[in-house]
Amino acid sequence: MVTIKDIEQAADRIAPHVLKTPLLESETLNARLGGRLFVKAESLQKTGSFKLRGATNRIACLSETEKARGVVAYSSGNHAQGVALAAKLHHVNAVIVMPSDAPKVKIANTERHGAEVVLYDRNTESREEIGAEIAEQRGSVLIPPYDDAHIIAGQGTAGLEIAEQAEESGVILDDVVICCSGGGLSSGVSLALADRSPETAVWTAEPEGFDDTARSLAAGRRVSNKPGAKSICDALLLPAPGALTFPILIEHVAGGLVVDDDDVRRAMKIAFEEFKLVLEPGGAVALAAILSRRIDVLGRNVAVIATGGNVDAALFAEVIQGR
Amino acid sequence: MVTIKDIEQAADRIAPHVLKTPLLESETLNARLGGRLFVKAESLQKTGSFKLRGATNRIACLSETEKARGVVAYSSGNHAQGVALAAKLHHVNAVIVMPSDAPKVKIANTERHGAEVVLYDRNTESREEIGAEIAEQRGSVLIPPYDDAHIIAGQGTAGLEIAEQAEESGVILDDVVICCSGGGLSSGVSLALADRSPETAVWTAEPEGFDDTARSLAAGRRVSNKPGAKSICDALLLPAPGALTFPILIEHVAGGLVVDDDDVRRAMKIAFEEFKLVLEPGGAVALAAILSRRIDVLGRNVAVIATGGNVDAALFAEVIQGR
Repeated sequence: MVTIKDIEQAADRIAPHVLKTPLLESETLNARLGGRLFVKAESLQKTGSFKLRGATNRIACLSETEKARGVVAYSSGNHAQGVALAAKLHHVNAVIVMPSDAPKVKIANTERHGAEVVLYDRNTESREEIGAEIAEQRGSVLIPPYDDAHIIAGQGTAGLEIAEQAEESGVILDDVVICCSGGGLSSGVSLALADRSPETAVWTAEPEGFDDTARSLAAGRRVSNKPGAKSICDALLLPAPGALTFPILIEHVAGGLVVDDDDVRRAMKIAFEEFKLVLEPGGAVALAAILSRRIDVLGRNVAVIATGGNVDAALFAEVIQGR
Repeated sequence: MVTIKDIEQAADRIAPHVLKTPLLESETLNARLGGRLFVKAESLQKTGSFKLRGATNRIACLSETEKARGVVAYSSGNHAQGVALAAKLHHVNAVIVMPSDAPKVKIANTERHGAEVVLYDRNTESREEIGAEIAEQRGSVLIPPYDDAHIIAGQGTAGLEIAEQAEESGVILDDVVICCSGGGLSSGVSLALADRSPETAVWTAEPEGFDDTARSLAAGRRVSNKPGAKSICDALLLPAPGALTFPILIEHVAGGLVVDDDDVRRAMKIAFEEFKLVLEPGGAVALAAILSRRIDVLGRNVAVIATGGNVDAALFAEVIQGR
């Protein structure tokens, strides 16, 4: 369905609009871990997350008629900002449906990119229904957060960069760990690495209570999270893997890693201290999986994707001053 | 004395050890400023500051006999970490003389890079004397923080990267603003840009009370700061421009910009919000000069170097939650 060719074409298409983010390394952390740990800092991407990649690719592929009718998206925040900026860069109107309890910084930034924000109650309303209704009323195109071939191909461009940057560092990566919710990034990157670095094992990372991908991979079919779970990882609270993304994950991902909120807080603190990175909780889950030794770095070359940095100051201040 | 050739050779020499840091841009901040603002994120450099560039070039140029005798350096922190890691990467012993009131994170990281740290009292002791004494006792080579041709050439490599990255973005930079203390980075980068981007005006930025470079540039001769001034910019508290660096600054720098600690705090907060960067106070001075409109970005292309990110968590937490 999505091929390496699609990802390569996406890379050309989005190149003028997205940052080739750095692959960072800390000598002191490497010494402590006894191996080499690389952090792909997508928190530095414009809009503060990788989501701009897929959104830009999707919107660039719209027809002129579709562009004129505008786009609509629903998102807990990072996809919202990605779609808002991608739409602005292509002179397309955007309406974004966001949960009223999303981090203030994500709502504010979405509006600052020129999008119209419609808030909904996460507990009583369906964002899919609201999004579909707006799309129908206005004739606008829905930009889904992950279950879309153009979105998957766009996110996969991060995988091309990781393979290229690892090669420049003279390294063959043993493992790549990816923060996962709907699976758009994980599926795209695992496709890219299957082509460019077939020796590399790809893993998803999820917060406790939202480990649907790990359990689905183990079960061989899509299973959902129990309702009522809580996590500080606001970007990763979806109920189940995607219909399009899951078959790709089953084929290309070695397994799913799970961490708790304390692991995530420690990873955010280490990212601040060692890499001078601002990571949001959901963006630190893959790093947390490594630092809590879900995979051992000893004698190995391991990369994690730090997927986002959109975190409110109060939470970040609390976390970096924690134990 | 230092030529573009020296900087080019330094770039080749240090390439295996240093990160080519990204040149970041924020669409929302650009919209607010009415121009394009680029941030060269040297805070992401290994050891958390640009200082690794010069230190690596200096130590790579030592003879085998000199390497065997080890190196000594004095520094408020960032040069310390740069020398410590550069020495480790070249299998050279390092002794670092640091003020006892330096940020804890800088002292701890210097030790973690394997260097021996000797603390001194900033008010009653001379770090130059202590450094010279150790160098004499042990026969080790002193690695000065800025007044050295190899150090200047090493720091200048950041200027080559800025010119190259601006060209990739299709931009001719009108201005580049650089956080300045002894002038090693400012002199090296201004030399590099004079060759690669002669249309660009280069400016130094300093904190109030430590504006020796601005006043020296205005006076046409080296003048010193009055003792007793205070600033949160712990990395930029030197009394006067260097003997080697100042003649280069006089030739290639348009002028010196000065900001106060409140400007610096606001810039650190904006760097957190818009760029997801952790900047230390001294690393945010150039950004502060832009955000407080010492130079107008309206209709222009301006780059600042964010020189470092080694800041204690308590101070960073306070600053990002400020007004």
